[in-house]
Amino acid sequence: MDQEKLIDKITQEVMNRLSGMGYSESGSTTVSQRARNVVTQQEYEGCECVTPAGLASYIDHTLLKPDATQTQIDQLCQEAIQYSFCSVCVQPFWVSYCARKLRGTKVKVCTVVGFPHGANVPSTKAFETRQAIEDGAQEIDMVINVGALKSGNLRVVEEDLRAVKRACRSTTITKAIIEAFLLTDDEKITICQLVKKVGYDFVKTSTGFAGGGATVHDVALMRRVVGPKMGIKAAGGIRSFEDAKAMVLAGATRLGTSASIKIVSGQS
Amino acid sequence: MDQEKLIDKITQEVMNRLSGMGYSESGSTTVSQRARNVVTQQEYEGCECVTPAGLASYIDHTLLKPDATQTQIDQLCQEAIQYSFCSVCVQPFWVSYCARKLRGTKVKVCTVVGFPHGANVPSTKAFETRQAIEDGAQEIDMVINVGALKSGNLRVVEEDLRAVKRACRSTTITKAIIEAFLLTDDEKITICQLVKKVGYDFVKTSTGFAGGGATVHDVALMRRVVGPKMGIKAAGGIRSFEDAKAMVLAGATRLGTSASIKIVSGQS
Repeated sequence: MDQEKLIDKITQEVMNRLSGMGYSESGSTTVSQRARNVVTQQEYEGCECVTPAGLASYIDHTLLKPDATQTQIDQLCQEAIQYSFCSVCVQPFWVSYCARKLRGTKVKVCTVVGFPHGANVPSTKAFETRQAIEDGAQEIDMVINVGALKSGNLRVVEEDLRAVKRACRSTTITKAIIEAFLLTDDEKITICQLVKKVGYDFVKTSTGFAGGGATVHDVALMRRVVGPKMGIKAAGGIRSFEDAKAMVLAGATRLGTSASIKIVSGQS
Repeated sequence: MDQEKLIDKITQEVMNRLSGMGYSESGSTTVSQRARNVVTQQEYEGCECVTPAGLASYIDHTLLKPDATQTQIDQLCQEAIQYSFCSVCVQPFWVSYCARKLRGTKVKVCTVVGFPHGANVPSTKAFETRQAIEDGAQEIDMVINVGALKSGNLRVVEEDLRAVKRACRSTTITKAIIEAFLLTDDEKITICQLVKKVGYDFVKTSTGFAGGGATVHDVALMRRVVGPKMGIKAAGGIRSFEDAKAMVLAGATRLGTSASIKIVSGQS
């Protein structure tokens, strides 16, 4: 019943936002029905597969605080190997070090670009991306230009997204961090459409450094906008198995967290 | 009397920290006497010149939040012209825009590099610096690699400082942000010595995004370490004329703040 109420609440909020902003619906089903279908299907799959151990492959095991030490990075890599996390997510400075530590394992190296403010020029983000890939990064989480989006300058936001996308080899996974906490729902919809159009693999909720963090509302909204196939990474404030499960049920296919071991151990 | 107590407290803390870490004293005066001389001289000069209006030329009028809009940047530039602030301090994305807006005025464009985490590779910071200067930046506030410092890897910290320094033309003012809130006093002393050795124009307390912010303790300590000639920029949490005056009396020669108009109006 709680799940039903949640779905209704999400649907209602999405509908409220979509109405009056010219968002075009294709097909004959209503927004409500389609949103419900997505979440219900996720819930069904969730019953099958959202187990603590099953979440390991969803997790980018994350340590992004600026004062992280080599000893802490060592531990991050060890844990990622031991628990078979998808990747370690570290600052660009640590990429080459992690790539060496993780050589020969299945754990990937994920890094961040233009992080956490995204207010760099596109050429700097592109340079940082190329350098990170050269250093061994296999996944790039870039921060969009929030200020340009807020100023209504979508041309610059798109140029910025494209600059990083171009800098990524075809084998490099691209994620765009929209920093949802700073955006209105209208802006979230606009940027998700743009990120999808430019061809990113994932849209990601948050940096974890701007307040807020991932919410069920945002993940469900993002899933609604980008459709069933694109990746969604929920990040920021995911601290327990329950948090992680809620994000996956809302539509997340990747989780950025530092509470990874707690999550795969099923702790609340 | 309060000022006297403050000087004693600062002196004591500096002495406690300096003792036992091999910091060599040159000359015959004690640390206590010399620290007192510096602060007393500052206080004397302060009585002459620390007036609200007199602080305008100390101020980097600052707007660094990632969701700042073009309208807010316009206002920042207008205010900087009106009140004759030293510079506007903006994210790299806004440098070329501000340089156009401020052409023909005395207000300079200051920007940030590797901001606010400093955990980029040196080549990215150097690239961002060159790009910012090309876009019209006259002052570069770079964030040091805190994680490398915390890991005891001073070679990397120095390489990083030098990469940005090299990228600056001789006419570009360089400031190194040490993010004092994340450091022990020993680490503050080490990094200040290094920043001075590499030839930066300023050492700066904080990004304003890591908690903490400028403190009298930190500014006095930094002044003690870098000597009387090097610039010190206090930034983070300076919200009134009293805050600003305290920083200048402790040894700051530049202030990074968004409360600039309040300060030069003498408001508390």
